[in-house]
Amino acid sequence: MTKRTVFFISDSTGITAKTLGQSVLSQFDNLHYEPIVIPYVDDVKKAHACVDRIIQAEKADGLPPIIFDTVIDRELNTILAQAPGCRFDILNTYLKPLEIELGISSSERVGKAHGRASDPEYKDRIDAVHFAMENDDGANIHYYDKADLILIGVSRCGKTPTSLYMALQYGLFTANYPITEDDLDESSLPKHLKAHRAKLFGLTIDAERLSLIRNERRADSRYASLRQCEYEVSATEAIYRRYGIPFINTADFSIEEISAKILDITGVIHHHHHQP
Amino acid sequence: MTKRTVFFISDSTGITAKTLGQSVLSQFDNLHYEPIVIPYVDDVKKAHACVDRIIQAEKADGLPPIIFDTVIDRELNTILAQAPGCRFDILNTYLKPLEIELGISSSERVGKAHGRASDPEYKDRIDAVHFAMENDDGANIHYYDKADLILIGVSRCGKTPTSLYMALQYGLFTANYPITEDDLDESSLPKHLKAHRAKLFGLTIDAERLSLIRNERRADSRYASLRQCEYEVSATEAIYRRYGIPFINTADFSIEEISAKILDITGVIHHHHHQP
Repeated sequence: MTKRTVFFISDSTGITAKTLGQSVLSQFDNLHYEPIVIPYVDDVKKAHACVDRIIQAEKADGLPPIIFDTVIDRELNTILAQAPGCRFDILNTYLKPLEIELGISSSERVGKAHGRASDPEYKDRIDAVHFAMENDDGANIHYYDKADLILIGVSRCGKTPTSLYMALQYGLFTANYPITEDDLDESSLPKHLKAHRAKLFGLTIDAERLSLIRNERRADSRYASLRQCEYEVSATEAIYRRYGIPFINTADFSIEEISAKILDITGVIHHHHHQP
Repeated sequence: MTKRTVFFISDSTGITAKTLGQSVLSQFDNLHYEPIVIPYVDDVKKAHACVDRIIQAEKADGLPPIIFDTVIDRELNTILAQAPGCRFDILNTYLKPLEIELGISSSERVGKAHGRASDPEYKDRIDAVHFAMENDDGANIHYYDKADLILIGVSRCGKTPTSLYMALQYGLFTANYPITEDDLDESSLPKHLKAHRAKLFGLTIDAERLSLIRNERRADSRYASLRQCEYEVSATEAIYRRYGIPFINTADFSIEEISAKILDITGVIHHHHHQP
């Protein structure tokens, strides 16, 4: 077992450093590490404080820390370079070759990675989040013409977190609707879903896992029983097959993976609806 | 003006390739590019299809495409290397030096970046999303003892998207509560918020921008008028100052930036609450 401290240091949010660093480190099965994110390192004092924390970590671990950083300023970079450890200066790895390829200089300004509140693409994401909230769990069935995507599935199979992620990350107007026992007994899609069949995407889950999740909510209920979960899951999958609705099992994947697979399978993109 | 096609290619979701690539490219002010994400490139046929799309893009643009990829398999990597363009093989840039530093081999298995549904940290994120949904917009004030963070602010200042992002990204149980005119007229925090003052974080926004946002929802209403927005914003900021509640202006920042700043300012972390 190897135990290290890993620093993700940024002059902005730290999201890029952490996303990249975690992705790379996930390739090392036996690595146990303590992640420390230090965002907004944007002055000399904060850069020196980082170096101090890295020195402390090295002393405590008896091993050099791993450092992923996205600090663009040259002076701050020079300070960070004094820290002990194995350092990956992410931006500078890519900027120099890109400057040569593109024939233009990089701006070396901080905090530009996540867009501005005034960008249209950003506004879509915020509007999509409100849409997902207002059209969660079948709360509203009258705005499905505005939806880019409608997720369906049994209660607690992962519809809500997936809808919100699709909205936040991709700006997709995502509604979700629970398949209930009434629908299952008739082996039929509800009428208001049939009208939007091309927007439907099904989620399913292993019955055992569903039973565990439901037991946390309502312990020892019929709702949470393995028998009930098995019935709902198999009857729901039968509906998906009958209507040719694409679906995936949420038990094996993270929301990020589920969402990327839905995009890949459906090719859905956001359609703008103009206000009347 | 430079126009390029930029490919983000992955054997998994493509999130790492896109996050890193966009962050790096945001440093080039005058670069106009067409982003193309190709996820789940996990067999020889899909890798060849990628190469074909890259060749097409080069022909159409008359310039070599930029390629960011996280494809771990060696055979697929060799195929992608045949594509024209300026390619950044992200994982391999970091894996080799890390193998040497850590003294262990990387697993070279795909799709490990976003955690598994069975990880406790992942479960916290899902539970946090449900908490944020159920405690949105003051819908529920009886579970604030379970909240890690309570965002407050006037209607439409950005509380809901920020709460959901804090939940999804960081697994923080985040509630939010709207400051209403009644609260403002008394220049006082509602009683049920006073009891949790240490968990409060304020959002504010420019009155002009708030008026624009509210006009989209209820055009030409008193609610959306600039005068009303100015009153609510200044009275709310007065409450923040009176009670020493930290706050930030959402007009200038993306949700990612707002969330990272809240974490940085408050140092909030998720506290586990055991079920009775």
